[in-house]
Amino acid sequence: MKLDRLRQSFKELGAFTDKGEGINRLAYTETERRARQHMIRQFEQIGMTVRTDYAGNVIARRDGKQDELPVVATGSHIDSVYAAGEFDGTAGVLAALEVMRSLQEEGIETRHPIEVIIFACEESARFGASTLGSKAMSGRLDPAYTRSLTDKNGVTLMQAFEDNGLNLEEVHLAMRFQDEFKAFVELHIEQGPVLEKQGTAVGVVSAIAAPARYHVHVGGTADHSGTTPMDYRHDALLGGAEIALAVEQAALAELEYGTVGTVGVFSIQPGAMNVVPSAAELDVDIRGTDTESRQRVVTALEQAVSRIAEARGLDIWMDEISSEEPVQMDEDLVEELKAVCEERGITWLEMASGAGHDTMNMARFCPACMIFVPSKDGLSHNPAEYTSMEQLLTGAEVLRDLLLKQAVVC
Amino acid sequence: MKLDRLRQSFKELGAFTDKGEGINRLAYTETERRARQHMIRQFEQIGMTVRTDYAGNVIARRDGKQDELPVVATGSHIDSVYAAGEFDGTAGVLAALEVMRSLQEEGIETRHPIEVIIFACEESARFGASTLGSKAMSGRLDPAYTRSLTDKNGVTLMQAFEDNGLNLEEVHLAMRFQDEFKAFVELHIEQGPVLEKQGTAVGVVSAIAAPARYHVHVGGTADHSGTTPMDYRHDALLGGAEIALAVEQAALAELEYGTVGTVGVFSIQPGAMNVVPSAAELDVDIRGTDTESRQRVVTALEQAVSRIAEARGLDIWMDEISSEEPVQMDEDLVEELKAVCEERGITWLEMASGAGHDTMNMARFCPACMIFVPSKDGLSHNPAEYTSMEQLLTGAEVLRDLLLKQAVVC
Repeated sequence: MKLDRLRQSFKELGAFTDKGEGINRLAYTETERRARQHMIRQFEQIGMTVRTDYAGNVIARRDGKQDELPVVATGSHIDSVYAAGEFDGTAGVLAALEVMRSLQEEGIETRHPIEVIIFACEESARFGASTLGSKAMSGRLDPAYTRSLTDKNGVTLMQAFEDNGLNLEEVHLAMRFQDEFKAFVELHIEQGPVLEKQGTAVGVVSAIAAPARYHVHVGGTADHSGTTPMDYRHDALLGGAEIALAVEQAALAELEYGTVGTVGVFSIQPGAMNVVPSAAELDVDIRGTDTESRQRVVTALEQAVSRIAEARGLDIWMDEISSEEPVQMDEDLVEELKAVCEERGITWLEMASGAGHDTMNMARFCPACMIFVPSKDGLSHNPAEYTSMEQLLTGAEVLRDLLLKQAVVC
Repeated sequence: MKLDRLRQSFKELGAFTDKGEGINRLAYTETERRARQHMIRQFEQIGMTVRTDYAGNVIARRDGKQDELPVVATGSHIDSVYAAGEFDGTAGVLAALEVMRSLQEEGIETRHPIEVIIFACEESARFGASTLGSKAMSGRLDPAYTRSLTDKNGVTLMQAFEDNGLNLEEVHLAMRFQDEFKAFVELHIEQGPVLEKQGTAVGVVSAIAAPARYHVHVGGTADHSGTTPMDYRHDALLGGAEIALAVEQAALAELEYGTVGTVGVFSIQPGAMNVVPSAAELDVDIRGTDTESRQRVVTALEQAVSRIAEARGLDIWMDEISSEEPVQMDEDLVEELKAVCEERGITWLEMASGAGHDTMNMARFCPACMIFVPSKDGLSHNPAEYTSMEQLLTGAEVLRDLLLKQAVVC
């Protein structure tokens, strides 16, 4: 594999961006459609057969010697958030392209066919819904839900499909079958600081955390901040502050499980200098790959709510916004990834993914795993997102080895 | 004094309101001007001489037998905030009217003249500046500052003065002299819960607290809420939460001094479910009548800022927005108020005012004190603001006795 060629791939794909800071290549836009066309040409140039499915997923196939065998697949996405970096999603797609180019150059043949998939609409930035392409491919897309989706300019997903020569009414035809796949592996940037801080080359992802999300309403009493003695108050901000700190404490106690808890949304009413806050609204996001650990944090949140409501005379209630199950990676694939790293002398760390990925959907219908490469300063969804070409190439080597083992060189 | 007449006074004055919930009688509006004209008529009907000064203060005078002696004054305001209640300010003005009516009916004469003053623009709701009338009267109004004031519709204070037949360039002529006054007393609703909760009829105000106000900026790091381990975070919300709780703790420790501390404004950035908060902005209001006690809370806030910045790796700075000195009431007047209550068998409580009042300005140039009457549920600046006519009449009796003692019945 070639470092300069990989760098050139980023340069070429990076040119497909709408105006604005960083990369702006939102799902199903004209710019993203042209980027997909560009990628299709790259795969076709190395002899792969490329098709676009009913969801807009691009599927580039390299035939196997026994082409009727289940496919060994890899892939990621090239759509982005607003003001994105260059690596989220594209790292996995361009590393896969580089692997395919090297197989082509070296004339390597495999028994199983290999596919590189560019999943459509992984990011929720445009339509508020994430991993639409992999959901469609794995038969997990609710048709009624997709028909309700609209972007901030009022363009419906249905219209966006039409603009791409697709028909939302046919999106269910993107579904594939479990026996079509032998394995799926996605290379992705970590989007967190752990690999860099630990000086480790590769993350072997053992599970993808799923968020349990709650809205917490804290109701207190608006009083004059000058005339209400401290012991007569029912200050909603202070109740909310204690809840946020209780979530942190509970998550810190689960450090060994990697469970995290965040209050990312916090607002108060009325928000005036001379009024004791009467209400606070919190959104809490609790994630982990260990279901029991995550549940302990949720329970701690519930207990904090009761305790603080009682102690402060506040009216607090919480609503579950969503609660998805964590997704475990295939154990055999995880072990094989570690073995590949060991063979090459590449440092690795078994870790969980805190963010969601297309692999979550693929893992529900075939053995799946993920390879992480370091993110500088843990930054992502940010123009400063950065992974060096050397770091990425190391990840690509692990990807190549795993694909070849699974597809069986002949 | 007559309960029904007092009730009728409220009914009549309450009719002067702009549309909206509760009372809307903002300073220097046409509605407030008409309300002032109405009040002028009431005072003139009982033989008082009424003039409006260069700031729009209404001064109703009842001659003394020795009319050259310094005046004994009382008063409050009739302008309101948006969606106000019926009692803030008006309680003091209408109680004074009822006292004057009773003196007239009973043919009581005093050596000193008595004045009832309706101060202009006590509330900051319209122009963002409070107690303009009493500041002007006590020579504490900065001309440059007044020329910069504008309401939310872009109307300047200068224009508002013109609309009232006043000239802002002449406002300094509203200033009076210390030797014109013997004493000033203001009756006002408590605007807090203490009298009601303690079942006490009258609050004898010993001091008016002044706020020390600070803006605190907490700078952290925006990270992905799923991919950033708990021990790698610099969460600005959590730092802000600890600061708010530290202010509460410090103020609770000063309970015996009545010092209060409030974070009434609290906002975070970016405020997204999946992003660790990168910044928090807090406005802190610390009030007390005991300067040392208030300073201890300010010091505790400063120490919390340092401690939390260090412990969490946050970048926190605080700016002083304002810091005024508390105002002590005149000791002799306070003792005389207590004696009046004792003589009448009226329950009283010596207390501080947490809110600011025109008396703060009057106290700087003549002996001054305040009488509080209970506020139901401590509510104020709210359509639900309530004090019963019986409670108010009790306060009016204390006011009358004090005025007569100071003005010397002959």
